[in-house]
Amino acid sequence: MEHDIQRTLLEMGERARSAARVLAAQPTATKNNALEAIAQALEDARAAISAANEEDLAQGRENGLDEALLDRLALTPARLEQMIEGVRQIATLPDPVGEIRELRYRPSGIQVGKMRVPLGVVGIIYESRPNVTVDAAALCLKSGNAAILRGGSEALRSNLAIGEAIERGLREAGLPGEAVQIIKTADRAAVGVLLTMDRHVDVIIPRGGRGLIERVSAEARMPVIKHLDGICHVYIDDRADEAKAIAIADNAKTHRYGVCNAMETLLVAEGVAERVLPPLAAIYRDKGVELRGCPRALAILGDAAVPADEADWDSEYLAPILAIRVVDGLDQAIEHINRHGSGHTDAIVTQDYGRARRFLAEVDSSSVMVNASTRFADGFEYGLGAEIGISTDKFHARGPVGLEGLTSEKWIVLGDGHIRQ
Amino acid sequence: MEHDIQRTLLEMGERARSAARVLAAQPTATKNNALEAIAQALEDARAAISAANEEDLAQGRENGLDEALLDRLALTPARLEQMIEGVRQIATLPDPVGEIRELRYRPSGIQVGKMRVPLGVVGIIYESRPNVTVDAAALCLKSGNAAILRGGSEALRSNLAIGEAIERGLREAGLPGEAVQIIKTADRAAVGVLLTMDRHVDVIIPRGGRGLIERVSAEARMPVIKHLDGICHVYIDDRADEAKAIAIADNAKTHRYGVCNAMETLLVAEGVAERVLPPLAAIYRDKGVELRGCPRALAILGDAAVPADEADWDSEYLAPILAIRVVDGLDQAIEHINRHGSGHTDAIVTQDYGRARRFLAEVDSSSVMVNASTRFADGFEYGLGAEIGISTDKFHARGPVGLEGLTSEKWIVLGDGHIRQ
Repeated sequence: MEHDIQRTLLEMGERARSAARVLAAQPTATKNNALEAIAQALEDARAAISAANEEDLAQGRENGLDEALLDRLALTPARLEQMIEGVRQIATLPDPVGEIRELRYRPSGIQVGKMRVPLGVVGIIYESRPNVTVDAAALCLKSGNAAILRGGSEALRSNLAIGEAIERGLREAGLPGEAVQIIKTADRAAVGVLLTMDRHVDVIIPRGGRGLIERVSAEARMPVIKHLDGICHVYIDDRADEAKAIAIADNAKTHRYGVCNAMETLLVAEGVAERVLPPLAAIYRDKGVELRGCPRALAILGDAAVPADEADWDSEYLAPILAIRVVDGLDQAIEHINRHGSGHTDAIVTQDYGRARRFLAEVDSSSVMVNASTRFADGFEYGLGAEIGISTDKFHARGPVGLEGLTSEKWIVLGDGHIRQ
Repeated sequence: MEHDIQRTLLEMGERARSAARVLAAQPTATKNNALEAIAQALEDARAAISAANEEDLAQGRENGLDEALLDRLALTPARLEQMIEGVRQIATLPDPVGEIRELRYRPSGIQVGKMRVPLGVVGIIYESRPNVTVDAAALCLKSGNAAILRGGSEALRSNLAIGEAIERGLREAGLPGEAVQIIKTADRAAVGVLLTMDRHVDVIIPRGGRGLIERVSAEARMPVIKHLDGICHVYIDDRADEAKAIAIADNAKTHRYGVCNAMETLLVAEGVAERVLPPLAAIYRDKGVELRGCPRALAILGDAAVPADEADWDSEYLAPILAIRVVDGLDQAIEHINRHGSGHTDAIVTQDYGRARRFLAEVDSSSVMVNASTRFADGFEYGLGAEIGISTDKFHARGPVGLEGLTSEKWIVLGDGHIRQ
């Protein structure tokens, strides 16, 4: 059985590698036509996809999945519509492949520059949301990559129905159907095998809970684009515009609680703490946010907060809880963030030009912001058009990863018979 | 003992991490001043470095090192001079850190762009050449990274003498001496420990023979910038300018034999093979290059070549040997290169615009060239100013790696009180 899975996956890998070579050489129009054909095929397959999804949901209820998971699994007509619309939006994005930059003459007479190229084969391992199947397939196709997709076993029927429509769309557009392959077995051993296939898969993107991401990071023999914690900070400087500071600290915490770009720790400069913390505490109290403060914060907040302990500074609550620390000023804020943060997204609120400039340079996170809510850290808000994930690593892609993160650059050299002396 | 090495290396890692934070925030002028101070300290330490190098050489002779290795190990006055000059050249290069690109307004009103930042701590493992110590230190410093350096044990005394001068230079410029640390033990276990330190080291760059690189790739828990084979091709198209084709095929093979960007396989279109192969064979014969041909090549070359077998297409000779294959045309050439090449450097010689355009797009190598010798694949020729290595991987850095390859990009967001709706 294990052996069968290995053979099946290696065959998928070979087919993906061949398909990737074909995809890499496709002109933009062909890829866009294929995206439109996929959107059309998904529309035509709505009934079949919904029926498969109903089966997944029934099975899920039988297996006692919790309501949150069932909700993520469900493909309502509106979600299906959104999914199809997403494919058409990706078709409208600029093609990153083939872009040449910095093509310059060198003293030898050759011209040297860089050309953007696909990575090759992208493996994506995700949990229950079936819309990721469509999203990931479309992003990989647009960026000239073949994809091997492994969704959650709860969503297998939905994913297979979606995969069939994608394959039909690819073939109608004259592209290899193997450009997007869905792993058809629910056996968990398949993930283990996939992670060893560094000759067939150029990068792995895990999307899901911490357990999945840690497993993939530990086992993968190829590079991984991954996202771990989102311990995001807002630092309110004593030269902040106080109204803006309050609006940003409110929005960053309370706009949505369960998201990776929500603020988890608020840092406030001592000089402004007495003015901004009381009105903020009133807002948070009305919205039911629990406050945990350092001694200096407690001295201002009184009963409105409970004491924070050391673990609070390293916690990603993903909940209506906020840690608050009063700091001496910018230096201590930067030091706190670089020590306790997760390198995700951190913001300063200040009207001071020099401090904004320092914060931007010295905070070592994938997104660093001035006078804006951390909630903006998102592929759509950044104009990527779509997002295949968020990376908290430094290597290759950092922060929200769109089409460019699925590509690499090669050098090109143009000469006219030039030889090296 | 093993335990001691682990403790020593973890302490180095901690110091490197702190130093990296300091370096990341340094203005360009401070880094350049430090490079000048290092150059001066190296000049002042010439006698000590030469004496240490003499000891290494004496020990090497005693241990029976071969002449080639002893030559790589030797720091002649001219090489020392070159090494010091290299540091001053790196000071003149533009600082990549802090460069902001594509800062654009988004519909929400925020401005979003990318800022170039150091990777953090760079680990470099190399073999006997002591000049790598200076080179690597200077490149890491300029790009705002701390460095942990592990040279070959044959060069330990030379490296330590160089390391002392570097540390003195750093401190004179007001920077932490721990920004560049040399592993002081010759114990091989140190490399194994270093490769597990993914919390302290952000990227590992191995420079040396295949054995070293394979070991590092297999064991490293952090990303690796590495260079494996250089199986480089020149394809002479039937629309090539024949004189240019001959000059390029000569230069790519015979300019230097033992280098990774030398041509190992020559592909010639059938339509032009009878005209270019005989004069090329005469050149190669005069220079003592052994030719190994496919049947069609042998039919033209006769006794001037021996038959190639399948293994020849996958061989990196690093020697005066050349495999020659006659192909039908462009499609077969691209197919051969993508199948047998190592993704290093490949060139087409053609006057045909459309074929040049296709070759550039479809050959999947770190450097792809039109009408130029593969020997140009080099950081200096490309204008990087210096080169810390060549990457044959696709992820992050590809081809010659200079200062930019030692950096990453973070997102920056500038707002004026913006919150997400």
